[in-house]
Amino acid sequence: MTERIPVLKLGDCLLVSIQTDIYDRLALILQDDLTSRIVETSARGVLIDISGLEIVDSFIGRVLGNVASMARILDAQTVIVGMQPAVAITLVELGVTWQHVETALNVEKGMELLGLRFQGRSEDLNVDVDRAE
Amino acid sequence: MTERIPVLKLGDCLLVSIQTDIYDRLALILQDDLTSRIVETSARGVLIDISGLEIVDSFIGRVLGNVASMARILDAQTVIVGMQPAVAITLVELGVTWQHVETALNVEKGMELLGLRFQGRSEDLNVDVDRAE
Repeated sequence: MTERIPVLKLGDCLLVSIQTDIYDRLALILQDDLTSRIVETSARGVLIDISGLEIVDSFIGRVLGNVASMARILDAQTVIVGMQPAVAITLVELGVTWQHVETALNVEKGMELLGLRFQGRSEDLNVDVDRAE
Repeated sequence: MTERIPVLKLGDCLLVSIQTDIYDRLALILQDDLTSRIVETSARGVLIDISGLEIVDSFIGRVLGNVASMARILDAQTVIVGMQPAVAITLVELGVTWQHVETALNVEKGMELLGLRFQGRSEDLNVDVDRAE
């Protein structure tokens, strides 16, 4: 059984919630999955929720940065949300710098950020409430 | 370190993505967390994504059913999404019956379902794209 982190499609965004303290191979699987899904779904935004992550090391920090750079090349904006204070401290202390990453406090603020960015292109993001009954 | 499954707030819905094959205590923690968050956030819908779940036993099946019943009493509708075929087979074979649960194939369809159900009350669900720059 291969462990996998589910990638959820929400309108034209992809949402990934990282919960277990991911080990190196899982991070690479996520990188592969996420980039394939971006291409498959023509996603314009990627939300990575790391509220379940209590520790982070330089490898994982770098993988997250790489995922964002790859998403950027594939024309999707990455927002990392839900970072715990300890993780922020560790990332700065490790000297991890992210090029193409925005951060937001929680998923909602992250989606707002993406909605704002994709203004006029994110109609799919709205839940279709006028579907005929 | 207590393992926890993050509960994400999306508009007036809560989204939980169950990834690890959850053991009994974690299921009970989730039950507590989710019901508290429903009250805290006045959520009207709960989406439980179980696409990462490859096996399920009767205990977990019952916990999911209970969570839905609790949510129902707290005035929130539960939709379980992303069920793998093997899990569906197991649930039927185990004779697990869910009273207050709807299912949908994926998160998007689940949100549509909730959007439809909460028609006119789910404005928050739409991402705010007209925020002034």
